[in-house]
Amino acid sequence: MSPETVVLKLGGSVVTEKDRPETVDTAALQRAVAAVAESDAALVVVHGGGSFGHHHADEHGVSTTTGTRDPEGALAIHDAMVELNRAVVEALQAAGVAALPVQPLSAAARDEGGALSLATEPVERLLDEGFVPVLHGDVIAHEGEGVTVLSGDELVVALAPAVDADRVGLCSTVPGVLDDAGSVVDRVDAFADVADAVGDSDATDVTGGMAGKVRALLALGVPAQIFGPDALGAFLAGEAPGTTIAGGPE
Amino acid sequence: MSPETVVLKLGGSVVTEKDRPETVDTAALQRAVAAVAESDAALVVVHGGGSFGHHHADEHGVSTTTGTRDPEGALAIHDAMVELNRAVVEALQAAGVAALPVQPLSAAARDEGGALSLATEPVERLLDEGFVPVLHGDVIAHEGEGVTVLSGDELVVALAPAVDADRVGLCSTVPGVLDDAGSVVDRVDAFADVADAVGDSDATDVTGGMAGKVRALLALGVPAQIFGPDALGAFLAGEAPGTTIAGGPE
Repeated sequence: MSPETVVLKLGGSVVTEKDRPETVDTAALQRAVAAVAESDAALVVVHGGGSFGHHHADEHGVSTTTGTRDPEGALAIHDAMVELNRAVVEALQAAGVAALPVQPLSAAARDEGGALSLATEPVERLLDEGFVPVLHGDVIAHEGEGVTVLSGDELVVALAPAVDADRVGLCSTVPGVLDDAGSVVDRVDAFADVADAVGDSDATDVTGGMAGKVRALLALGVPAQIFGPDALGAFLAGEAPGTTIAGGPE
Repeated sequence: MSPETVVLKLGGSVVTEKDRPETVDTAALQRAVAAVAESDAALVVVHGGGSFGHHHADEHGVSTTTGTRDPEGALAIHDAMVELNRAVVEALQAAGVAALPVQPLSAAARDEGGALSLATEPVERLLDEGFVPVLHGDVIAHEGEGVTVLSGDELVVALAPAVDADRVGLCSTVPGVLDDAGSVVDRVDAFADVADAVGDSDATDVTGGMAGKVRALLALGVPAQIFGPDALGAFLAGEAPGTTIAGGPE
């Protein structure tokens, strides 16, 4: 039986220190890496920006919809993300995981309406050859805007169908989708189940908020989990920790 | 009138010191950058590996056809190329060129027969948004082989039609295709014109040799020049220095 294919998102805030710009949370990264190294799955890893990407993006006024044509600004945001990516790739390789970097600036673009086009063949081929592609939030060319931000959540949504993922996991700083009372919701079958708790969102909001994550994962058609760092090992072992997002048509 | 679109290859040996591993030839790079900064063309820049990529590839036994599945070896080759790429991008930005890095590992793959698939939409979009994409020889996933080397010459051949290039220039350490007497051949219309001088080559040899370059450029259908570093400014100004490879069907 071939191993299952899993797309794993490591939230930027999970692996970086929130309060110190451009600082890897080494202990948290090592715990995540140790869990990944135990897994038999064919893995695609995506990570967010955490304290690396966000302040550069803010400084240059760049979001997923508002871009820049300043090459130095674009490079500063990209470089910060690449630096974090390098830390993740090297930690994974040191733990025996065949990680290799994949950078969205080289592989993705947006059209005028903001729709994402991601070249997934390199990721699929790396996966087939036994590597673990490690992607990250980045800046990408955007028609009419220069470059805009591509979020890790957008990457997950684009990659899962391309690699025919069996499961998707979003490892976040919270242990799942929380209800009004602050308890983890076990399962979400439709956005209406949690709309009151997570707030409103339109279908294109996949830039980091919980509402956008839930909407995007519901539309994926692949079982997804949202869970906290302590549950990463359980998720990779095949369990369903945190909140199950049922997927399939709403 | 919109500016012409030009794919420019800077040979690895043009911008690195041949006899010192992983050393940029800063003076040569600065001269090339100064010429590029004068150009009004919409430019895609490709550079080879020179003293950066080649010894790592040799050390790990990796070529365009023989691969590796060793993630540390793959990353070592990739890193060496990225380091050179970064030097080129930063020198261009410092001269006012809107350069951004594009890394083939993230954008390209080979099938079992070695045929290259390169995602060119990110390059096209960056170009349309006013940036100068700067690509480099790299390692890429190769079906059944792990990762193999992708040469700068292969990139030129794949990119020129994708960006609808008006002209292609290969800036090499030699001033053009040389005949038996060591003189620059003015124009090549068919491989037979220079076969005696450049040696034999099959159509898939685009890994750096002059015979392979001539064959590949002849098949492109876009006018191409092979010239030395001193002629870069003239080429970018619209002249036809060195050897003209006529292109079009043989």
